[in-house]
Parts: sequence; C-alpha cells; structure tokens
Amino acid sequence: MLELRLVQGSLLKKVLEAIKDLVNDANFDCSSSGFSLQAMDSSHVALVALLLRSEGFEHYRCDRNMSMGMNLGNMSKMLKCAGNDDIITIKGDDGSDTVTFMFESPTQDKIADFEMKLMDIDSEHLGIPEAEYHAIVTMPSAEFSRICKDLSSIGDTVVISVTKEGVKFSTRGDIGTANIVLRQNTTVDKPEDATVIEMNEPVSLTFALRYMNSFTKATPLSNTVKISLSSELPVVVEYKIAEMGYVRYYLAPKIEEDEDENETKPQV
Amino acid sequence: MLELRLVQGSLLKKVLEAIKDLVNDANFDCSSSGFSLQAMDSSHVALVALLLRSEGFEHYRCDRNMSMGMNLGNMSKMLKCAGNDDIITIKGDDGSDTVTFMFESPTQDKIADFEMKLMDIDSEHLGIPEAEYHAIVTMPSAEFSRICKDLSSIGDTVVISVTKEGVKFSTRGDIGTANIVLRQNTTVDKPEDATVIEMNEPVSLTFALRYMNSFTKATPLSNTVKISLSSELPVVVEYKIAEMGYVRYYLAPKIEEDEDENETKPQV
Amino acid sequence: MLELRLVQGSLLKKVLEAIKDLVNDANFDCSSSGFSLQAMDSSHVALVALLLRSEGFEHYRCDRNMSMGMNLGNMSKMLKCAGNDDIITIKGDDGSDTVTFMFESPTQDKIADFEMKLMDIDSEHLGIPEAEYHAIVTMPSAEFSRICKDLSSIGDTVVISVTKEGVKFSTRGDIGTANIVLRQNTTVDKPEDATVIEMNEPVSLTFALRYMNSFTKATPLSNTVKISLSSELPVVVEYKIAEMGYVRYYLAPKIEEDEDENETKPQV
Repeated sequence: MLELRLVQGSLLKKVLEAIKDLVNDANFDCSSSGFSLQAMDSSHVALVALLLRSEGFEHYRCDRNMSMGMNLGNMSKMLKCAGNDDIITIKGDDGSDTVTFMFESPTQDKIADFEMKLMDIDSEHLGIPEAEYHAIVTMPSAEFSRICKDLSSIGDTVVISVTKEGVKFSTRGDIGTANIVLRQNTTVDKPEDATVIEMNEPVSLTFALRYMNSFTKATPLSNTVKISLSSELPVVVEYKIAEMGYVRYYLAPKIEEDEDENETKPQV
Repeated sequence: MLELRLVQGSLLKKVLEAIKDLVNDANFDCSSSGFSLQAMDSSHVALVALLLRSEGFEHYRCDRNMSMGMNLGNMSKMLKCAGNDDIITIKGDDGSDTVTFMFESPTQDKIADFEMKLMDIDSEHLGIPEAEYHAIVTMPSAEFSRICKDLSSIGDTVVISVTKEGVKFSTRGDIGTANIVLRQNTTVDKPEDATVIEMNEPVSLTFALRYMNSFTKATPLSNTVKISLSSELPVVVEYKIAEMGYVRYYLAPKIEEDEDENETKPQV
Repeated sequence: MLELRLVQGSLLKKVLEAIKDLVNDANFDCSSSGFSLQAMDSSHVALVALLLRSEGFEHYRCDRNMSMGMNLGNMSKMLKCAGNDDIITIKGDDGSDTVTFMFESPTQDKIADFEMKLMDIDSEHLGIPEAEYHAIVTMPSAEFSRICKDLSSIGDTVVISVTKEGVKFSTRGDIGTANIVLRQNTTVDKPEDATVIEMNEPVSLTFALRYMNSFTKATPLSNTVKISLSSELPVVVEYKIAEMGYVRYYLAPKIEEDEDENETKPQV
C-alpha cells in the first residue's frame, strides 16, 4: 500500500511539466526513502533523474518498494486538473494495475479522484556515480532558459565555455554568430540572482540546444540552476526542488568537429 | 421603429460570445417587454434562450413586435468593435432589411455605426413550461467551467449526481476515470462562492461534455450558475444577467447504456 | 568604422518590429547626421522611411557614409535576444561584410555579441519633397490601430474623410458597413489623448486596410500618430521616435471606383 500526501501539490504539477516532453513512459519508483524516477528520453540521448524525498511529504506511507509504470502525457493531463493550491495524494495498492491521484482544495469543499491505468515498462536503472567536475556554474534559471531560447534562433548547438571570469554561451548558424558572456557576480541583492563559478580547470563543451531547451522546462521548479561540466562526462543540469529533492538532466557533449573539415566534407 | 440603448454595452458583447458558438443564425425577438432569442444549436440537440428585459435598458423603444434574423458570427464581429466601456444602441426601422449597432465611447468623442444585413430565418418558438426539478444546484460559474474543461481531458460525457451532501461530476475514458465532488457550502465570505443544493430526490444524469463546454462560454456573464436537474426533463443551465434577464441552456440527458452490454455489442 | 551606442535599446527592437513585416531586405544608411532607412515594401506599393538622428545616441561614430544591406527578419531575430533594458551598440568596419550588435545588460553582468552577415541590395533613394497637405490628423496611436483592426473585420479598404469637426473612417463589406467618427478633442487630461485636426480643405481618400494594419505595427514607438492627407499625394502616417526621429509610411490612395459601375461590371 502506498499513500503519499503532498501539501504543495503544484510541485508535482511542475515536475510533470519538466519531464513529460522528454520522456513518454517511465517507471516511478517508491521506497521508504522517497519517490523517484530515472529515464532516458525517447531518442535515448538524454537522461532525466527525479527525486522527491519522503521527508518532503506531509504523510508518506510506502509499505514495500513499488515500481509504477506511467504514461507521463496521461499523468500530466490528470495533474492539470488539480488546482495550484490543491493538496495532492498519490495512492496505490499492492498488485493493483491503477494509481489514484486525489486532489483536495484548501477549503476541503472540492475533492477529486483521478484513477489512471498503470503500464508495464521495461527499464534498467543506471548507477550514476558521484563525479568530480572541472567546472560548476550556478546561475539564475530564468537567465539560462532565456539564453538557450535566444541562441536557438541563431543555431542548433551551444558551446559552453567556462573560465574564472565567467561563462560564455556561443552558437553559429546561417545568419551569423552569437556569443553571450555572463560574468561571475556574487554581490547581488538576492542570492538567487548570483552567478557563481567554481572551477578546477577551464572547459569548453558543445551541446545540442534542442535538449537544453527541453531541460529548461524545469525552470518553474527553482530560481537557480546548477550546471556541472567536465570534458569526460555528460553535463548535469540540476534544478533543486525546495527541501525535497531535485530534477537532474544528463547530456553527453557533442564531439566538436574541425570546422574546415566540416566545410570541405560535402565536396569529397 | 426600434431603439434600445444599453449603457453597459459589454453585456451584449458577452451575450454574443455566450451563444455564437452554439447557434449560427437566429431571430432576435423585440417586444415592449424585452429583447429575446430562442434557438436550437446547429445540430438540433441543445436549446438556448436569452432574455434582456426592457427595464434593463437606459432607453427602450419598440413600437411593434419585431423579429430580426441575424447571423451571430457577423453580429459578434461587429460587437467586438465596441469598446468594453461603450454604450451600445440597437436601431431598426420597420420593414428595413438592416439593423444598426451604434457604439458611443464614454467621453462621446468616438461614435461608430455598424449596419448589418438581416436574414430571413424560419423558426418556431417552443413553449417551455415551468417545471418542478428533482434537484437544483447553484454554484460558482468559474468552478463549473473548470470542472467541465478538466473532465473533457479524460472523457466525453459527464455524469452529474446530486445528493443532499453534494454534487458529483464523473467521467471515464481510455486513460482512466475521474470523480469530482463539491460539498454543499453556504458559509462563505462572498455569497457567489457558495455551493447550494436544493433537492427533492437524488438524481444522476449523463450529458455530453461537448455541449456543457459550449454553455460555459456564458461564464463571464455571471459569477454563479444554476443547474436544474430532473430525470424526465432536459437539464437547464442558467446564467443570470444582472437585473436584466438570463441566458438559459437546455440539454436532454443521454440514456445511460448498460456498460457490459456496450462492451459485448461489437462481438455480436 | 561605425559605432552607434543606444542606451534605450528597446527603441531599436521596436523599430524593427515596425518595419520587418513590410520590408524583407533593406539598406541602412549611416552618415554623420544619423542612421536611416528608406525602402519600398515587397509589393512595391508602400514606402517606409526611418530616421534616428545621431544626437539621440549616447555615442555616435561614423567615419564615412556607409550603406549596410540587411535582412530585416534576421536582424529582428537577433534584436529579440536583447533585453528590454539592454544598451545596444551597432558596430561595423569599413569593407567588412558583417555588422555586430552588442547587447549590454544594465548591470553589465551579461554582454552579448551578435554578428550578422550583410547583403548587397540594389536600391535607389527617392527624394521625398516637403509638401502641403489638405488635412493633418494627430490622434492617439492606439486608437488608430484599434480602428484599422476593427474595420478589417468588415471590409478591405478604409475611406478616411476629414472635416473641421472630426475624422471619419468608413468601410463596407459583405456583412455590412461601418463608420467610425472621432471628434476633434483638445481638452484632454493627457496631451497624447488629444485628437487634433488641422485642415485647409475637406478631404476623403480610400486606402487598403492591409497596409494600414502593417503601419500600426509602429504603435509601440509613440503614443500619437500623425496622418497627413492630400488628394494628390500619398498619405503619410508618421510615428515620432522621442527626441530621435521617426518612422514614416507613405501609401498612395486607391482610385475610388463608381459603386454602381462596380456592381454592374460582372453582368457585362
């Protein structure tokens, strides 16, 4: 038996919006420690990992580990029916092929039960080892979202280059080139406006903007985003979920091809 | 000769938005008592009835009864050109094949005349007898609109069930089922937030959500909606127009088919 | 070498939005006196003229006259990446085939460089002589935009008629006719709300609404619009750019055909 009561139900609505464009079907894993998900995107390029720790729920009962396969599009349809101030409870019975989402309005005058069919989904859980990163950039999540969106109007990929002074986002396309530089800045009025760079060695890596723009769907979950870069590892784009956990996205860098070679290739 | 001057012109704009999706062409009937309309929707399933009493107009002159056939899409195009604070005057001459809508800005610095061609429309006026209903639910119109919209993302029909404790809206579809319960609640700060149930006997009726969602286009006209239910009668969904009249929608319930029978039918 | 620094960068963003739908490619002309553009729309019916005087820039350096051919759609894509509070600098080198737009955030923590390829565009500069107009109407730009949009839902052309008392905008279409009259009104609280008519002789001219609606894309640039009319000349629709210059649109009136003749033509 499973019963997870989340007073700030809007968090779960935002979590679904953050992952449903990237992943169609996925297993949610419930254990005594929390409610989590790990899934590859449908093209098997990016990985998304979600954790909502049990302490973040008002009531958390999970008698035995359960894995519930859900269609995230359908789940999102149901969660959209919850009001932003509603309390959401997730209920499941051992061996049942359905899950129930209960939405309670703050005044308790409106109570909704949505029952969704579960799916059997094959999935293997990847171990993601803790790693050392060459550079970690923490910045306002809205700024990161804006930059990815802006660069997408010029090119398809972004080069993220980190030095002690700042972080540079670059792209190029048919109509020209673009470089956006953010300076390290910790003397801000609100801590969430800071751009903080922790760097062991400079790093410059290329990523597909398409995926970055999918990741920024998590922007409503957190005022800041943490981008961890290393030349041998996938980038980690992390949005913290206040006092509960996180959504993390992993994406392997593109091997930067020699530009001249690229241009001559079609002639061969 | 007809001259109807409505200081709160935005009311007429909202009335058109409330009915134009349901009805393409209709006769507006003017008499000394008021400006009214009664029309079936284009698929002849739902009926809409509008009344704007003469007392609600600042100036109301209607020398003899007139029936003016209008295309509601074209009328809506014209009324959209009126500002929300404009005074609207409807003018018609006996025997003329046009109607004029005059829009005056509050400062009288802008005056617009829109002249629209009338149409000949066959229509018979149905007498709608006053009836006794098993149950009458009065609730916030925005809440009713939200519930119909939410359930539409799951299924095609809604079962409305009324008991003394509350009203339940249910649906089912391919992805699952949904039940939304509103409790009777009269102890609210604002009277328009109340959910009030007057019941003679419990009732449970099924309706097509498509029509319900058309009816909720009238939500801007009133903070509350009154739903009158009886097992032998069409439901009445009524939006009062402050001190002037109402828009009422009538819709016959669907005959609930036996579910098992439904499922076996294709095998026959 | 060219370096034009505009503190109120949002002005340049608005200028592009005001002209990019009308003109695809155009030469921007830079001289010591200012930054300007003159171009026909793609169907060669309307003319747009832009002037941003050098005094309006915080820093203005233009060593020799330059003409830079730009695709306005691409330029708009780049300028959309500037924040509304950003300072924009336009940079060009003699003989270079690119132009650079630099965007600096108010706090200087974010600096972006967008480099765009220039184009070779044939264009001849028309001399537009100063002229005397029969009537000049100055009115709120939002009101003019609203009127053009409203009339477009009824007809394709607008007749603008000016008398001492006011200005009338008329149209007719399949569903009916519309007349909107604005009275001269100079006793307003805010000067930009005034409708002022300077008239030497009455004038009544017909224009294609499609172009008028394109011109009103400049509405965000100015609270007022000045419409100069003369029966022998194209209308001038002018939006002043505060303390810097203007965007002006020129459009020849349509020859009004005799209405009866029009209606009989198909029978011949």
